[in-house]
Formats: sequence, structure tokens, C-alpha cells
Amino acid sequence: MAKSPEEEHPVKAFGWAARDPSGVLSPFKFSRRATGEKDVQFKVVYCGICHSDLHCVKNEWGFSMYPLLPGHEIVGIVTEVGSKVQKFKLGDKVGVGCMVGSCRSCDNCSKNLENYCPKMLLTYNSIYHDGTVTYGGYSDIMVADEHFVVRWPDNLPLDSGAPLLCAGITTYSPLKYFGLDKPGMHVGVVGLGGLGHVGVKFAKAFGVKVTVISTSPSKKKEAIEHLGADSFLVSRDPDQMQAAAGTLDGIIDTVSAPHPLLPLIGLLKTHGKIVLVGAPEKPLELPVMPLLMGRKIVAGSTIGGMKETQEMLDFAAKHNITADVEVIPVDYVNTAMERLVKADVRYRFVLDIANTMKAA
Amino acid sequence: MAKSPEEEHPVKAFGWAARDPSGVLSPFKFSRRATGEKDVQFKVVYCGICHSDLHCVKNEWGFSMYPLLPGHEIVGIVTEVGSKVQKFKLGDKVGVGCMVGSCRSCDNCSKNLENYCPKMLLTYNSIYHDGTVTYGGYSDIMVADEHFVVRWPDNLPLDSGAPLLCAGITTYSPLKYFGLDKPGMHVGVVGLGGLGHVGVKFAKAFGVKVTVISTSPSKKKEAIEHLGADSFLVSRDPDQMQAAAGTLDGIIDTVSAPHPLLPLIGLLKTHGKIVLVGAPEKPLELPVMPLLMGRKIVAGSTIGGMKETQEMLDFAAKHNITADVEVIPVDYVNTAMERLVKADVRYRFVLDIANTMKAA
Repeated sequence: MAKSPEEEHPVKAFGWAARDPSGVLSPFKFSRRATGEKDVQFKVVYCGICHSDLHCVKNEWGFSMYPLLPGHEIVGIVTEVGSKVQKFKLGDKVGVGCMVGSCRSCDNCSKNLENYCPKMLLTYNSIYHDGTVTYGGYSDIMVADEHFVVRWPDNLPLDSGAPLLCAGITTYSPLKYFGLDKPGMHVGVVGLGGLGHVGVKFAKAFGVKVTVISTSPSKKKEAIEHLGADSFLVSRDPDQMQAAAGTLDGIIDTVSAPHPLLPLIGLLKTHGKIVLVGAPEKPLELPVMPLLMGRKIVAGSTIGGMKETQEMLDFAAKHNITADVEVIPVDYVNTAMERLVKADVRYRFVLDIANTMKAA
Repeated sequence: MAKSPEEEHPVKAFGWAARDPSGVLSPFKFSRRATGEKDVQFKVVYCGICHSDLHCVKNEWGFSMYPLLPGHEIVGIVTEVGSKVQKFKLGDKVGVGCMVGSCRSCDNCSKNLENYCPKMLLTYNSIYHDGTVTYGGYSDIMVADEHFVVRWPDNLPLDSGAPLLCAGITTYSPLKYFGLDKPGMHVGVVGLGGLGHVGVKFAKAFGVKVTVISTSPSKKKEAIEHLGADSFLVSRDPDQMQAAAGTLDGIIDTVSAPHPLLPLIGLLKTHGKIVLVGAPEKPLELPVMPLLMGRKIVAGSTIGGMKETQEMLDFAAKHNITADVEVIPVDYVNTAMERLVKADVRYRFVLDIANTMKAA
């Protein structure tokens, strides 16, 4: 018979987990594996709350295993390293993002695209190599193979930097891969939430012109004055959208709720690209004729490989890019989730694990 | 008051046109413009029947103007050239495909992509520069600006070559543009109709491995033995589709009826591309997560520019690529349309205009 989460590993750990699709999180005693040869164990200092965490605690994607302990924007301080660990030593600042394992031998893995490995293991809600379920960063202690741990740049804040491990790489990677990082280009960012606001910052740092597209007119001032976007479109205003038709080289679409693609396709130039980085639980409606008439592309992209994640963090540190965060105590997490449903946060909640996670 | 189609131009012409969304075609007297300085006038010899013609006569895309005289796979013999025509002389074999005009000055036009010019004029059912409606190739005589006329290669048959002007370029262009023309690649072709069967021939000529994907198991023998496909998948057989998961570099999807994309996305390798070249009248369902998980792309493509159309014809002539056609008399056209609805043709009807088009 399988051991309980509290007994299956030797290292005692504590976090907050959801027990069922109500998604309500509550204190949870579990355990972490002993630090293996290539493992890095670290004390979690901060962990961002991603919209994916909300999808998962409520089983909106249909593959949640309970108890589910979310969190994949994890930063901390190294407390132990395995005998064969080469990149890290005690006291180093480190981060773990969305994945903690992959096959390390497939075509994608050999190209530093562990994120597209068919056997990629998520930081939480995956079955790890040892057969146990992975638990995320809403917890006091973390352990991971050093390959899936990134070095934290010295001048990058731990709290506002944490969301870069998911929101950052999720927007940085497609801007690079789809060639939307060339100065002089004009890129749209749909949705001004956790992902979108970081996407605007990266796009501006690449030197491209940025238009924010949002359902909320109230976000215009913020987008332009605070985030540095060049312009703003209210997606529900057909006149505004029509006036901007055919002007964008590409769009990073961060919306994770079902939404119409047709108005966005209309904003693209010939050969323009919409890259979806949010994952609505229902299929989107794809009108074909408008796609045909301009050899346009709708693509998907998810996070990035470990090499690119490190590159992104170093780029962010160099360009002073961080997320705008609201740091909250752990026992505020359920309220934060409720506010996240209403997009009532500018722009990312970050759990202050080190100061507020108290074992029962 | 606007003149009637029969009187608006000086050159008498005759064809078969639909008068309303019933789509029934019947004899139609109209007129063609006098041959302008840069115009080529030609006697139509053959005209292919494209699935688009069916959509248009029935107004299934919602922008049909009646009387509607279809036909955009037109081949013939030059009967008159304007004073400034440089490429053609009397007696030359020529072709006209899907378009007869564009702005000639926009970014796309300057890149030989007239097909993506916002002011591109269709061979039929468009308003031409002179304000009159364009009429297609189900007619005895044609006139077009020489820029939109292609030279017919000597050894390319007129009848079985005609469909290349639409079906050929529609599949050739995306294979080239999306990089699916590299020997060693593995490409899927969905739908074995007018477009699909020509797509298989081009893909094979490029040296790629080809899998035909169809709802009809009955087409397997034909696809492999006659068209030279390497393998065949029945799209409604989940076991077959699952066994082929992750094997294709790209897919040319020729289906012009609504159909599920999810099983096709599953066939793609990481970074695989589905290129839609058919235009279903309703939006397709686009599942987002499967697109994200392999940085996959769904794109559209429509015909090709004039330079590429000429290149495609020359390539076809060199590699002995033609369509498989059933040549029919003009008065069979309505029966042909009914059979086309049922996909009851291998694989393209071609109207024998020169021998069977008789003015009333």
C-alpha cells in the first residue's frame, strides 16, 4: 500500500494544498525526498500565484490529483546540495519554475527544450520518477534536480522577480521564437494580467512598439503611463479595432478564458502571428477565411527550456524587469484566489513564504 | 443607370452563370471589355471546376453577386494582345487563375504576393477597376491584364493542367512557404479531393514522405498505388490516429467543410504546422492546450502570387504533374456540381469549353 504524503519521504515539509475541486487551500503536512546526488534542496522564500494554480486547484483542465499543492514561481535559498551538484552551493539564491523533470534524451531535450519533452514533469501535480506526486512551492521547503534549478541574478529582487519563472518565460520565449523581438516591429499584448504586464515590459525592452488590447478601458492609463505601452485598444470597441486593422506584426495572447479570435486576427498584418500562451479550458472558435487571406498564423507556446529561462532571468536583471506584485501572507491565499478570479490584482500575488508559512 | 451585363462592354461573350443561391447554372449572354493596352484576350479552351465555385454559386461565403459566372482554372489560346503587352503574342497558350487584379503598389504586391494584396480582384465575383463585375472561365472568351496571365509550358496538357491554376498553386505555395518541401520530411495531406490529390503529387516531387489522411478508407488503395503516397490514415479511426501521433512535420489540410482539428494537431511533432487551405464556412474548434504543449501552429494560405504560379506551372511541367480529371461538356455542369457535393469525382471536373460551349 502506498504511503501517505506525510510518510513517503524522509524530509518533513509543510504547505497549503487543495483537497478537492472546491479549490479551497488549507494547511497540509507532507514530506520531501532526501537530497539526491544531483539535487538541490532550498528554503522557499517567495512563491508567485499563477492563474494556472487557480485552474488546477479547481480541476478546470481535468487532470488534477488531490491533495494538490500548487506553486511554480518559487525562489529561495539553498540549504543542501547533493554530492554531484555542480552549479550551486549553500546559501545561493535559486529559483524553480514550472517543471522539475524531463527525459533528458529526446530530440526536444537535446535542444534545450525540456518544456516540450513528452515526459516533462510539472513542478506540481505530476508523477515524479520515484512514483510520488510532485508538490509545488506553496510550501516551506523544496528539492529539485539542479538541471531544473536556475541561478538567481544578484540584483533581481526575490519577491517581484519570482513571477518571471512562469509569467516571464511564458511571454519572453514566444517573443523570441516567433521573431517578435525586432526593433521597429509592432506587437500586441492581449490581456493585462500576470502574464500580459510582464510581456509588455519584455517587448518594450526588445525595442518593439507595443499595443495593449484589453476588455477593460480602465486599464489604458496604467498600460501607457505605468507599463510604457505605446497604445491601447479596447477589444470590445469595434470602431477602435477596425481603425487598427492590419497594423500588428504579432500578438501575444495571454487570456486564459474563452474569447473571440476573429477581432485579433483582423489586427494582424499579412503573415502576422497570434501566439496563445493562456490555456482556455474550452476550444476557441477559429474563423478560417481571415486566416487564409493573409497567410496568418495562430500558434501556441508554453514556458521555455531551462537554458532560455536562465537567459530570460539574466535579461530581466540587466533591464530591471520585474513583475508588479502584491506580497501577501500565506493565510490570505484563498482570498487571493477569489480576487484572482475577478482579475482584482495588479498584477501578481506573491506568497511571503519565509515570513508567514507556519507549520501547525 | 448601369448597363446590363450584355451591353456594358463591346465584346460579345457567352457563358453559364448562376442567377441565385440555388446555384443552378444556365446559359448567360454577357460582354467582355475591349482589349486594353496591357490586356490579353484569349479563347477559353478548358476551365476546371473548383470547390470554391460551388461555395460561390450557392452564396455559402455570403458575398456572392448574381448573376455569378464562376471559373478560375482557365486555359486558352491568345486571340488578341494590347499594344503594350510584352509577354504574349497571338496563338500562345496561356492560363488565368484565381485573380485578375491587385493594387500593384502595396507591400505585398511589391513582394510578388498579389494574392495577399488587400485590393486583390478575384477572377469572378469581384468589382473590377472599371466598376463592372468580373466573370470567370465558364465562358467562351476571356480578357485579363497580362500581369495576371501565365505562360503555359509546352509539354503541360491543357485539360489536366488547368486545375493547377487553383488546386496546384494552393498546395504548392504553402509546402514551399512553410518549409514543408525538404526531402526527409514527413507531411500529411488531409482530404483527397481536387486540392489534396495534387498536393500529394507536389509533396512527392519535393521528396518528402507523404501520409494521406481521409475519412474514407476506400481511398487508401488509390492514394498509395496511384498517387504514390507512402501511407494512409483513416481520420475517424482513433487507434490509427493514436499510433501515428507525433510523426508529422506538417499537414496541408484541404478540407472545406467544418471538421475537428484536435486529431490533426495530435499527429504533429513539436513545432509542427497545420496549414489550412480550404475555407469552411463556419469557424473550426481550436483546442488550445494541445497547441501550447508542442509550440504548434495552425496557419492559413491561399493560392500564390503570379511569379510563384508561373514557377509552380514550370515545376509541374518538369515533373509531369497534372491533375486527374474528368473532362465534361458544358451542359453537364449542374450534374457535375451535384456530384462535387458528394465528392463523387476523381479528382477534378474540367469543362471542355472549346468543343461544347455553344451560344444560344
